Amino acid sequence: MISKLIEKIRKTGAPICVGLDPNLSFVPEEIQKKAFEEFGETPEGAAEAIWQFNRAIVDTTYDLIPAVKPQIAMYEQFGIPGLMAFKKTVDYCHEKGLLVIGDIKRGDIGNTSASYAKAHIGHIKIGSKSYAPFDEDFCTVNPYLGSDGVKPFADVCSEEDRGIFVLVKTSNASSGEFQDREIDGRPLYEWVAEKVNEWGASSMDGEYSNVGCVVGATYPEMGAALRKLMPKAFILVPGYGAQGGKAEDLVNFFNPDGLGAIVNNSRGVIAAYTKDAYKDKFDAAHFADASRQAVIDMIEDLRSHGAGVPQ
Amino acid sequence: MISKLIEKIRKTGAPICVGLDPNLSFVPEEIQKKAFEEFGETPEGAAEAIWQFNRAIVDTTYDLIPAVKPQIAMYEQFGIPGLMAFKKTVDYCHEKGLLVIGDIKRGDIGNTSASYAKAHIGHIKIGSKSYAPFDEDFCTVNPYLGSDGVKPFADVCSEEDRGIFVLVKTSNASSGEFQDREIDGRPLYEWVAEKVNEWGASSMDGEYSNVGCVVGATYPEMGAALRKLMPKAFILVPGYGAQGGKAEDLVNFFNPDGLGAIVNNSRGVIAAYTKDAYKDKFDAAHFADASRQAVIDMIEDLRSHGAGVPQ
Repeated sequence: MISKLIEKIRKTGAPICVGLDPNLSFVPEEIQKKAFEEFGETPEGAAEAIWQFNRAIVDTTYDLIPAVKPQIAMYEQFGIPGLMAFKKTVDYCHEKGLLVIGDIKRGDIGNTSASYAKAHIGHIKIGSKSYAPFDEDFCTVNPYLGSDGVKPFADVCSEEDRGIFVLVKTSNASSGEFQDREIDGRPLYEWVAEKVNEWGASSMDGEYSNVGCVVGATYPEMGAALRKLMPKAFILVPGYGAQGGKAEDLVNFFNPDGLGAIVNNSRGVIAAYTKDAYKDKFDAAHFADASRQAVIDMIEDLRSHGAGVPQ
Repeated sequence: MISKLIEKIRKTGAPICVGLDPNLSFVPEEIQKKAFEEFGETPEGAAEAIWQFNRAIVDTTYDLIPAVKPQIAMYEQFGIPGLMAFKKTVDYCHEKGLLVIGDIKRGDIGNTSASYAKAHIGHIKIGSKSYAPFDEDFCTVNPYLGSDGVKPFADVCSEEDRGIFVLVKTSNASSGEFQDREIDGRPLYEWVAEKVNEWGASSMDGEYSNVGCVVGATYPEMGAALRKLMPKAFILVPGYGAQGGKAEDLVNFFNPDGLGAIVNNSRGVIAAYTKDAYKDKFDAAHFADASRQAVIDMIEDLRSHGAGVPQ
């Protein structure tokens, strides 16, 4: 699956993904109103609002980007109707030719991890039939439980040609509380990185492995070290924009081949119409056009800093 | 919420919960057949089978136990219909007076963690209305992302009188890969335990905090040390039975007051009718009676070893 992502990155020239994290407060009043008129102030109404919001953003950005990254918590918070909107979003993105990275941060052990993997990036057998319940192309995985937790996901990657991104060094302020602590002279995140190499070795797909990792844009020096430590792992990079990650820092996350990372932007794209840079030019009715402009600007920002220009 | 759990433990004399992890292979042929006849070999059919299976087990055990612990991955693997069966199970257990510990192992940062917390143990506001999407009483949380990840859950515990169990030392064989690594002379899990105390301090509910932790029965010596390190945290203890944890080891997880831990049993109860100890006495048609007997035997096993006898 990672080779498909690389192909799409080469085609679009955009090593980025749009984070479809539709906090209801980002959804323009008019869309919310229409959804609530139809379904009431209910989870169904909220789910309809975020689905309409997502669809408009996908429609104005799909030709520019290789992938999207829906954050499942933003859907799960609306219960079953929310998760139905998640699935509808995944399917719609596939129709539009986009790859989907499910930001689910699941992680358990053995058979339980295997169940999550089947649910999100694999197939589940029911009697003589087989189903792909959520059908993402990639998902994010939490490594705290060790190999018992991650290997069942990696196995599904090999069997079904899908991919995962294992949390190594997250973008948040308190990520260092445990991740940065030193163990035998090296931070925990480097020990996790070593395991990412191990888990990924049996799921190579061309030059890169289907087992990638997550390293926050907010920690560029650690990013540079981790880039070297995991040469075959694609890095999913959150934290650009709203969280403080800058284009000049992103260079660190790419390999000399100009590949090896995909940078996420959520709020900066989907809520662009509320930001200083765009709100004078785009009103709420044109929120999706603002998102398109924000994607164009982000691609240019990365390119002008030489971050992620494939050879 | 932890005081409600303690009240129920005192009333039943059973510091245990039944893990409703309905792997389809545990569900008797007859129940699967009926469900597939009605709904086909579909996710809807699988969801119906696990729901009927759960209901029968709850019906034969609810008067003996304080709580159940459904593992959401076993439902999520069947997509939307599976998650509907999860919600139906939660609601049915509440009707029967049981507390529900959602084993969801979620964890993200900030607003995203808050969304998970609202989805599972809190309420979400939609316009002027408020909803409890999954409505568990407790849920499990992964700490790898640090305070940014866990505090939003702890805040919801305080605001809504619910509880969480933070993964500290998990029961699986490879849990030591990261959790046992030494940092300044102490294993990582102890550093996480220190944080559990910190996160829980502002959510006290009587003698114990609404912020508890997970420590596997398979590591009794670490359990003893962690018990002392987190005197106010209730410990959710997986790993009894199938995974190798023994009653004599469980003593370590309780405080001198006979409280402070709740021991989970999944397969040993819900698939009891397939085990050597029960299969001669109970056939597949009486699987739920076997589950009841397994619960009675487990309570006796703990009691005879002096594990969890409240004063």
